[in-house]
Amino acid sequence: MTDERVVAVWRDGAAVRVPADQPVVTAFDLGLGRGDGVFESIAVVGAGAPHLPAHLARLARSAELLELSDVGETVWRALVDSVLAGWDPGTDGVIRLFLTRGLGQGLPPTALAVLSPVPAEVVRQRTDGISVITLGLGVPADFRSHAPWLLGGAKTLSYAVNMAALRHAAARGADDVIFTSLEGQILEGPTSTVVWSADGVLHTPPLETGILPGTTMARLFARAADAGRPTAVTPGTVDDLRAADAVWLVSGVRAAATVHTLDGVPRGDGGLSASVRELLAR
Amino acid sequence: MTDERVVAVWRDGAAVRVPADQPVVTAFDLGLGRGDGVFESIAVVGAGAPHLPAHLARLARSAELLELSDVGETVWRALVDSVLAGWDPGTDGVIRLFLTRGLGQGLPPTALAVLSPVPAEVVRQRTDGISVITLGLGVPADFRSHAPWLLGGAKTLSYAVNMAALRHAAARGADDVIFTSLEGQILEGPTSTVVWSADGVLHTPPLETGILPGTTMARLFARAADAGRPTAVTPGTVDDLRAADAVWLVSGVRAAATVHTLDGVPRGDGGLSASVRELLAR
Repeated sequence: MTDERVVAVWRDGAAVRVPADQPVVTAFDLGLGRGDGVFESIAVVGAGAPHLPAHLARLARSAELLELSDVGETVWRALVDSVLAGWDPGTDGVIRLFLTRGLGQGLPPTALAVLSPVPAEVVRQRTDGISVITLGLGVPADFRSHAPWLLGGAKTLSYAVNMAALRHAAARGADDVIFTSLEGQILEGPTSTVVWSADGVLHTPPLETGILPGTTMARLFARAADAGRPTAVTPGTVDDLRAADAVWLVSGVRAAATVHTLDGVPRGDGGLSASVRELLAR
Repeated sequence: MTDERVVAVWRDGAAVRVPADQPVVTAFDLGLGRGDGVFESIAVVGAGAPHLPAHLARLARSAELLELSDVGETVWRALVDSVLAGWDPGTDGVIRLFLTRGLGQGLPPTALAVLSPVPAEVVRQRTDGISVITLGLGVPADFRSHAPWLLGGAKTLSYAVNMAALRHAAARGADDVIFTSLEGQILEGPTSTVVWSADGVLHTPPLETGILPGTTMARLFARAADAGRPTAVTPGTVDDLRAADAVWLVSGVRAAATVHTLDGVPRGDGGLSASVRELLAR
């Protein structure tokens, strides 16, 4: 099993591998000082990144929302190839791509890729499921679609609130969080998309709420549709989750993690998790 | 005039000066990848940082809100002394102190200081005043005080929304922004505190709204009180700003910048800006 962390930076027109403990970003990089940049987390299976295109498309869209110049697909693929070179195909990993505004003032952005093994805790959650609490973001569900400065839909490096929410959950003995709107509508997890099953239909909240377009959710819904299984974009509430047959937090690295406890109340999955995972594994 | 940027990092128990273009943070630092850290911006005048204690106190409070271990005053003072060494007393500067969660998992935080000259545009705004637009944050004024995961009151490295708001203002021909709550209450600027004068009283919004405790505002209000000038913490609205005798955005580096235009409407300062600046300059 590989336990190394791998880093590649874009420098002088080439992807350059650097040791994981070597500093790569200066003190004036706006990605560090202002969280001013975007990122993606991409699952690595069998030393490959099969879903890279969907992540590159979302990265480009996030960059556009931040008026940040993207380095383009060729650069990202070179960085991905660089970190994957020599990776043990038997180790599940996660690649993170970072794009920052660099030094600003129209100077080139900073682009880099890191690859590390999937943490053991995440592997456990794939199998055992997760306990989740709901936390309010305080924003009405329809607000962010009319307030582009709030960067709804962009996966930015400014994740301090997402991390604080996860710490808050851990302090209450839970594994993860579902953010809700001011009215109690379901939004998303700090690092995942919410999917629930009710009356045989797979549901997920609308993008107009300002949530990220989930790449794994999109793959799941496309495959469900191919398999003749109905899907719907639904503005759901926490009550809808309580009444649902099953609830999952869906993301690239953890796939569909079954919510076995919601706000302290144990819940089942109606035996549906196996078929959802099977759709994602195809 | 000094035009160099200066950097010092805390490494092996000492403040170490490094060239400004030398990378100082690794790709796995959570300050970079998650905006998971806090910072302060501190005015440098005459090669000194006279208001350092108030900023160190706020940094410690921000770190506490993020459950981040602070490196302590001795370390910060060593970093500040390091970047100030050799600085031209004739050049106004700004020190930024960064504290990140480092590699996480209980490993030591990352602490560093940078010093750079105050940008010419900021110097211009001190004298000429600023055009400001109001933008909604979408959150009710009383929400964040009951939702600690939203990190109200903490000056975090996750400033992507603050930066996006400033770009939004620039695209509309304005210099700066005042954020408002869902109900239209005045909150703060992306990098400043709002202060207005009405009926001879200096007003600023309550901290319970989740805004940062402004160090320069606090100094201004203390000196105003000493001078027998009344001050008040007031939950104001945009209408209150329109009706005010004067409005300022107050911060360490820009001091009290007079708002000469609010949402496109020119406004005066009732001749009050000189006395406010005089209070801050004492």
